[in-house]
Amino acid sequence: MEKLLYGVAYYDEYMPYDRLQEDIELMKEAGINVVRIAESTWSTHEPQNGVFDFSSVDRVLDAMHKAGIQVIVGTPTYAVPTWMVKQHPDILATTAQGPGKYGARQIMDITHPAYLFYAERIIRKMISRVAKHPAVIGYQTDNETKHYNTAGPNVQLQFVKYIREKFKTLDAVNDAFGLDYWSNRINSWEDFPSVIGTINGSLGAEFSKFQRQLVTDFLGWQVSLVNEYKQPHQFVTQNFDFEWRGHSYGVQPDVDHFAASKPFDITGVDIYHPSQDDLTGIEISFGGDMARSTKNSNYLVLETEAQAFVNWVPYPGQLRLQAFSHLASGANMVAYWHWHSIHNSFETYWKGLLSHDLQPNPVYNEAITIGRDFARLSDKLVNLKKNNKAAILFSNESLTSIDWFKFSFQSSKNYNDVVRLVYDELYKMNIGCDLIDPSVEEIDSYDLIVVPALYTASDRLLKRLNQYVEQGGHVIYTFKSGFTDEHVKVRTIPQPGIISEACGISYQLFVEPKQVSLKNNPYRVSEADNQVHTWMELITPDSAEVLASYDHPHWGQYAAITRNSYGKGIATYIGCMVSSAVMHAILEEAVRQAGLWGPDQELAFPLITKSGLNEAGRMIRYIFNYSDEAVEWKHVHASGTELLTGEAVEQGQSIRLDRWGFVIIEEEM
Amino acid sequence: MEKLLYGVAYYDEYMPYDRLQEDIELMKEAGINVVRIAESTWSTHEPQNGVFDFSSVDRVLDAMHKAGIQVIVGTPTYAVPTWMVKQHPDILATTAQGPGKYGARQIMDITHPAYLFYAERIIRKMISRVAKHPAVIGYQTDNETKHYNTAGPNVQLQFVKYIREKFKTLDAVNDAFGLDYWSNRINSWEDFPSVIGTINGSLGAEFSKFQRQLVTDFLGWQVSLVNEYKQPHQFVTQNFDFEWRGHSYGVQPDVDHFAASKPFDITGVDIYHPSQDDLTGIEISFGGDMARSTKNSNYLVLETEAQAFVNWVPYPGQLRLQAFSHLASGANMVAYWHWHSIHNSFETYWKGLLSHDLQPNPVYNEAITIGRDFARLSDKLVNLKKNNKAAILFSNESLTSIDWFKFSFQSSKNYNDVVRLVYDELYKMNIGCDLIDPSVEEIDSYDLIVVPALYTASDRLLKRLNQYVEQGGHVIYTFKSGFTDEHVKVRTIPQPGIISEACGISYQLFVEPKQVSLKNNPYRVSEADNQVHTWMELITPDSAEVLASYDHPHWGQYAAITRNSYGKGIATYIGCMVSSAVMHAILEEAVRQAGLWGPDQELAFPLITKSGLNEAGRMIRYIFNYSDEAVEWKHVHASGTELLTGEAVEQGQSIRLDRWGFVIIEEEM
Amino acid sequence: MEKLLYGVAYYDEYMPYDRLQEDIELMKEAGINVVRIAESTWSTHEPQNGVFDFSSVDRVLDAMHKAGIQVIVGTPTYAVPTWMVKQHPDILATTAQGPGKYGARQIMDITHPAYLFYAERIIRKMISRVAKHPAVIGYQTDNETKHYNTAGPNVQLQFVKYIREKFKTLDAVNDAFGLDYWSNRINSWEDFPSVIGTINGSLGAEFSKFQRQLVTDFLGWQVSLVNEYKQPHQFVTQNFDFEWRGHSYGVQPDVDHFAASKPFDITGVDIYHPSQDDLTGIEISFGGDMARSTKNSNYLVLETEAQAFVNWVPYPGQLRLQAFSHLASGANMVAYWHWHSIHNSFETYWKGLLSHDLQPNPVYNEAITIGRDFARLSDKLVNLKKNNKAAILFSNESLTSIDWFKFSFQSSKNYNDVVRLVYDELYKMNIGCDLIDPSVEEIDSYDLIVVPALYTASDRLLKRLNQYVEQGGHVIYTFKSGFTDEHVKVRTIPQPGIISEACGISYQLFVEPKQVSLKNNPYRVSEADNQVHTWMELITPDSAEVLASYDHPHWGQYAAITRNSYGKGIATYIGCMVSSAVMHAILEEAVRQAGLWGPDQELAFPLITKSGLNEAGRMIRYIFNYSDEAVEWKHVHASGTELLTGEAVEQGQSIRLDRWGFVIIEEEM
Repeated sequence: MEKLLYGVAYYDEYMPYDRLQEDIELMKEAGINVVRIAESTWSTHEPQNGVFDFSSVDRVLDAMHKAGIQVIVGTPTYAVPTWMVKQHPDILATTAQGPGKYGARQIMDITHPAYLFYAERIIRKMISRVAKHPAVIGYQTDNETKHYNTAGPNVQLQFVKYIREKFKTLDAVNDAFGLDYWSNRINSWEDFPSVIGTINGSLGAEFSKFQRQLVTDFLGWQVSLVNEYKQPHQFVTQNFDFEWRGHSYGVQPDVDHFAASKPFDITGVDIYHPSQDDLTGIEISFGGDMARSTKNSNYLVLETEAQAFVNWVPYPGQLRLQAFSHLASGANMVAYWHWHSIHNSFETYWKGLLSHDLQPNPVYNEAITIGRDFARLSDKLVNLKKNNKAAILFSNESLTSIDWFKFSFQSSKNYNDVVRLVYDELYKMNIGCDLIDPSVEEIDSYDLIVVPALYTASDRLLKRLNQYVEQGGHVIYTFKSGFTDEHVKVRTIPQPGIISEACGISYQLFVEPKQVSLKNNPYRVSEADNQVHTWMELITPDSAEVLASYDHPHWGQYAAITRNSYGKGIATYIGCMVSSAVMHAILEEAVRQAGLWGPDQELAFPLITKSGLNEAGRMIRYIFNYSDEAVEWKHVHASGTELLTGEAVEQGQSIRLDRWGFVIIEEEM
Repeated sequence: MEKLLYGVAYYDEYMPYDRLQEDIELMKEAGINVVRIAESTWSTHEPQNGVFDFSSVDRVLDAMHKAGIQVIVGTPTYAVPTWMVKQHPDILATTAQGPGKYGARQIMDITHPAYLFYAERIIRKMISRVAKHPAVIGYQTDNETKHYNTAGPNVQLQFVKYIREKFKTLDAVNDAFGLDYWSNRINSWEDFPSVIGTINGSLGAEFSKFQRQLVTDFLGWQVSLVNEYKQPHQFVTQNFDFEWRGHSYGVQPDVDHFAASKPFDITGVDIYHPSQDDLTGIEISFGGDMARSTKNSNYLVLETEAQAFVNWVPYPGQLRLQAFSHLASGANMVAYWHWHSIHNSFETYWKGLLSHDLQPNPVYNEAITIGRDFARLSDKLVNLKKNNKAAILFSNESLTSIDWFKFSFQSSKNYNDVVRLVYDELYKMNIGCDLIDPSVEEIDSYDLIVVPALYTASDRLLKRLNQYVEQGGHVIYTFKSGFTDEHVKVRTIPQPGIISEACGISYQLFVEPKQVSLKNNPYRVSEADNQVHTWMELITPDSAEVLASYDHPHWGQYAAITRNSYGKGIATYIGCMVSSAVMHAILEEAVRQAGLWGPDQELAFPLITKSGLNEAGRMIRYIFNYSDEAVEWKHVHASGTELLTGEAVEQGQSIRLDRWGFVIIEEEM
Repeated sequence: MEKLLYGVAYYDEYMPYDRLQEDIELMKEAGINVVRIAESTWSTHEPQNGVFDFSSVDRVLDAMHKAGIQVIVGTPTYAVPTWMVKQHPDILATTAQGPGKYGARQIMDITHPAYLFYAERIIRKMISRVAKHPAVIGYQTDNETKHYNTAGPNVQLQFVKYIREKFKTLDAVNDAFGLDYWSNRINSWEDFPSVIGTINGSLGAEFSKFQRQLVTDFLGWQVSLVNEYKQPHQFVTQNFDFEWRGHSYGVQPDVDHFAASKPFDITGVDIYHPSQDDLTGIEISFGGDMARSTKNSNYLVLETEAQAFVNWVPYPGQLRLQAFSHLASGANMVAYWHWHSIHNSFETYWKGLLSHDLQPNPVYNEAITIGRDFARLSDKLVNLKKNNKAAILFSNESLTSIDWFKFSFQSSKNYNDVVRLVYDELYKMNIGCDLIDPSVEEIDSYDLIVVPALYTASDRLLKRLNQYVEQGGHVIYTFKSGFTDEHVKVRTIPQPGIISEACGISYQLFVEPKQVSLKNNPYRVSEADNQVHTWMELITPDSAEVLASYDHPHWGQYAAITRNSYGKGIATYIGCMVSSAVMHAILEEAVRQAGLWGPDQELAFPLITKSGLNEAGRMIRYIFNYSDEAVEWKHVHASGTELLTGEAVEQGQSIRLDRWGFVIIEEEM
């Protein structure tokens, strides 16, 4: 990327009256230098089957180009027109809940050939038309693509073929998935039942994996189409999103981000997060780390909130804080969804930079300052490079299988609760980290790998982790890791299975803790924080040192948390769900042992620091104040220049940040 | 109406054994002078297609007439026989949940021609048979008619024709509803998708309006049939009901009461309300005000509770209090659902005046005293006339659109919560009020109009309200008023749109309050009551005076509640959801300014007073004690006669009411 | 039964590798002397339509026989193979939710002739093959059989025929069920609507009764098939289960246990219960009493938990306590579901004696001690005979009808809450009791019958209970008893109907209590325990003595709890839902009056005592400590021998029990 992009999604099609020039004036005032268009309006661009109308695209491209604003064009395939569904009702995905109903976006069967035919035609029409337009810098294929739980008979058929290709024989399937149970055994390919009703977690998890593959395939196919027209200076991206809990929360269950992002030139994401008093920056950091890690490169924030809905209107200063937090994680683009609030339909309260009156307002006014700073500091801040020494190993497979085998009948916690339990504490400790997935090849460059709830993993991966420890790496596992193989079959050796070797422990029993705490409060936290919850394994140490055991009349002899030296490295094992405070203490200890404790760790949330090297090879340090109180601290890093003010910063100097404020320091070489 | 009617629903068909004469004896003892029959038992009256048996109707009519009890005959169309559904399964309404299942009442497609054919035939058969019977004083068409969410393909077809008739072109529809969004644009009439799955709030709200029109049309059609047979002294009525929250709560979402009541001679309603410690009289008053306002006339309470279900058995005295409260709101009839508790089926615990043992009981015994008083005081109390100076403007369209665009993802509050927030406080202040809807022509006779959450309204209506203020009227708006036009399209001018002119304010931002209170507690309420919740608009006053602003570190500069002089009148704007206590204070101030504060307002809940002129033109004042404690106060109105005791009441005299007691004072001329 | 059986369910088919000999070694070490096999694996035994493979059965039978372990063979019909459903999709039960989906067990229409054809064929094939194998001691037909809500058109057709057979005419049906209500009257058999959508509680309850009859018929049919092959020394049993609330809780709604168990040689049940701090033994006792009462004989616990899921892993000592508690209720067999934890599929966390590592573990190690004690003490403990003087009369019909007519709209309580309210207090009082149902013939041998919420009952039964009291029996009724007849038609005489005679009371009104307590705290319990909740009847005593009345400003004159002498006996009536503490006090008083108070009642939970006569005619007394604290008490019964230690126990001697400990005393003759 040559410069920082500051953008908005722009829908000329939604405008209540023609105000393109007026909007462009307001954009330029705010430093908006890129707009994203066209991904949502297939029915406008193809009002009838084979009748095309790209006039709104043309006029926006021309006007933007004239104004010096660049454009990312989306393929409009994630929301299908009425005529298509009327003509081919079965284009709507059939799910476990039955056939679909027209109305929402993201409701089609992404494997349906009629849909694919129409999608290919509009993609070719649109991209061929715009590819040589000077305003166009890139393309987005589709939007927030997922599989939409498509599971109709045609998808089932593909799945059976996929299973046969993978396992060759039904005996192998029956064995790997344990289908004898409850008479689920399949003895002839014709008998393969629809997976919709299955109660077999291995079969169900395999189907989820297959569905994720459908997404990867679909996106790869779109990219291949767009690539036929793409000009050398243009890029293709996707807008990935995350597990949604009313906001971006964790690992996306329905997409394998690492696999799906391969064909793209650059990864894009949307990140929506709590605001006002609940703004922490964690989702910005998590989503950014995930996006950056997919290709170990800079990424685009294609969508994030401006005003969004009612409880997210930012306090003064927060919009700025958010924008630069994205840059600090490695983003080269920050774009709002969306420019203007919509006057009808569904997301009317998911407000844009402009309210429905389409006039400047306090949030827009703050955006102006961001746009100016982006432009002014682009050379210094673009293409920030990271070299993290810590990583979190996450696993789509484990996410799925823990959905099948929940912690308990009552528990609403899932895999991402464990991921976030570790991620959040690393974030608060200012440990920059990458995310890696089971396909990772190179891990030896990391000093510390944290492995939350790796419930489902191949022997190969677990042995690789043992080897990593043996060769001097530090690993922290949580409970449930190593339990099942890649087919969600529980290992038949003592748990935690293969990693027992590096961890120096074993267990046979596990229970749901009720009023259990860690004996003698080993991490000196509050009594409430010393409680364990949701899950506890009754661990017997072999060679491991016991860091904590349970305070319980019957389970007191078992270990809760252990540490083991194995080869040149250390493996820590956390056998129970602990509080944030205890997790923080465990991680802090491990971080220190891994040699990663430094001055940034002396700061702590709400003082968040992120760093990297800019194109000139200089260290850029961001320090953010994620709180409603001003804060002051002593700068211990090398002297440099604070880029927003241009003032020199000396080592040892006191710096004061307003509430929700931040500084950006470029160190001297 | 010539006299007060005291009635019950009576189902000879449900009786476990023949006890018609025994029932009539008990009715006469209790002063029951009217029964409502036949609306629920189509399958008894037409046991097979085209085979009719009105013997239970005939025998009840004859016996009642002999006993001097009048009869209202219902058309039995709201519950369909088994033979009909077996023969024409598609008579059952298809809804968003799919085809219907036989069993409950109110499950048919009220537009289905087979249903209409059978309904017309039984109506003609039954009404022609009974019309000249001397016992019959009137008819009820159907019962609690609604549209039952009918939305099958045939209804969809009618809707598309309705849309075309209304908008003429699809361009107009696409524009008004913003259908470009998410590719929902419709470019050919054949493509019009079933509205069942729509995510477009404008389209969905229009469909709800269309469904309400179906109810209006269906009832009008029934009335036209009955009118062919109706004798000059007879009336036709309907039994309207209200938003149901386990009891009658607020504006009915599925019926446009004002439009639907037009063809009827007199409006009827059912009103069910909490009892025992939760009896407040509010639902009696609200339902009565709505019913009376539909035709600006007296009305019938066709159903209200006797014992109803287990938590509603009235305390001693409450049944009397309730009956006279209905009269005080303008009812000419109070009828129980129902005479006897049913021994089988579904509403077995929705008990009648008689328990299942069909013998006198404490509740029945209290009814005896009511029947006697009704008979004795009928001339004094019948046809009470009201001349209210305050009105609440409600809107079915706003109810629907706020259902589409909820206050927040979590909030369970809806439009009726706002309606009731203002209604309840006016009630407790003893401000008699009418209900008016957007079709209202004449509003200048009111001194005060309260407008809760008028989210959806035409320019015409809002300008009319501006004009009303300009000419000296007082209006109180709550938040969300004026936001969208009649197509649920958000206005593109600064909010609150057209009414900004009269209100002298504007806002661009709105948020969900968390721990926000009104600065400096301007209404001197408790700290808890000073909190705002659910919704807050960040208001900038223009010409308006700020009555309250927010106590919040970031939103403190914005106004919460404002008042503006505009022309000769005053417009108050409440920009946030406030407590009952704050609403009370705001309304009290406005009531005083509108010149409506008088001696009745010095009393307050639980002392509730209602008044009106009787046929002799004398002022009748009811004073009710809605509490479990006796209460005493000084009578400040003119001297007169307490009608229950016949004793004189002097101005200035102390009056004492037992718990749940009341007096009725007829003033001297 | 010749000896105590200690068993496990064993699934060779689920094993991840061949370990039959290894498993048998471990079983023998643990004293396992019986395994249950084959009931879940139809698709393994009949991999394709008509292709059979019983190799896993054969090899297990041979190996077990060689090891001296006996085998119970199950008919594998409760989980259907994929090929069958693929070939005949309509074998899956159609329910109110529509057609079924393949995957789970217990999803078929047990009346479908194709299913019955296949079931009969595999039963004949399997049972004929194994019947003469020396390892086989008995058979289990199907498993946890229920009707799976089957209600498709074919079932509906059978139901209509059943109705016609039972009622002869539609007039009788319309009358008994009150179908005139809401036009539900059926006037021609062809019109009979699917009962799926019915709102008529009488019709719905009759359908539930019919569905229970389907289960009885299906099981009887299976037994008749197995009996054709059964050898003289073999038995046939079923595995009944209970209302499920995450564990076995109360009366099974879907099966009439007494009727269904008739064709079996011996009743079997599964019992799953809370553990760890929540272990009380109540479910063990309740399930055992129900099983024993079905045939007034000893029974088999075919399944109970070993480790089960995560919150049920037993504390040390609990597995022993549980096993002997089963024996103390009259079980002759205790078997775990299951031997080994399963590595795939669905019940992966419903763990067996062995964890997934298939190695000895603390729970298995405790089982070893049980197996040894079972073997050592078998002659003393097998075939324990009971002679209870107290009984609880339960009713499937009342369970169903209270589901139709719930206590209130909000209440989640059902019939079983009332059953357990009385059962639990009798249990804690060490009153051994039988369960009897409305089919009971002989009740005069009981001194006390407790009748919870007998909402639905025939005149005959109620008159029989009146007669029982008259002749000297003691009955305790709770609220709601006697309310409706066997067609769920409310009685038209004053409530509680026919039993008013023995109870000497009547009531017409009932309400939902809010902050109501018993006046003057007659049972001297805590204030919280003195509250009544959920339901209260406003009782007027006739001849009855008032034991408690309501503390309420309006209902204070009504009785809450009464006692009446009638003939030579006493009838107590409890008109409201009371706390456990109050129920305990009421029951204690009644127990004393019935002459059932003795030394065992001086002990109390957590000291639980059970007794009976062994085959030698000697009194066996079990005393269990259901607590986490050691306890000591004085032995007041006759001297004897403590069987576990072999030590003499003298009358008057102090005995000390460890936490979760127990003793078994065989009295001297």
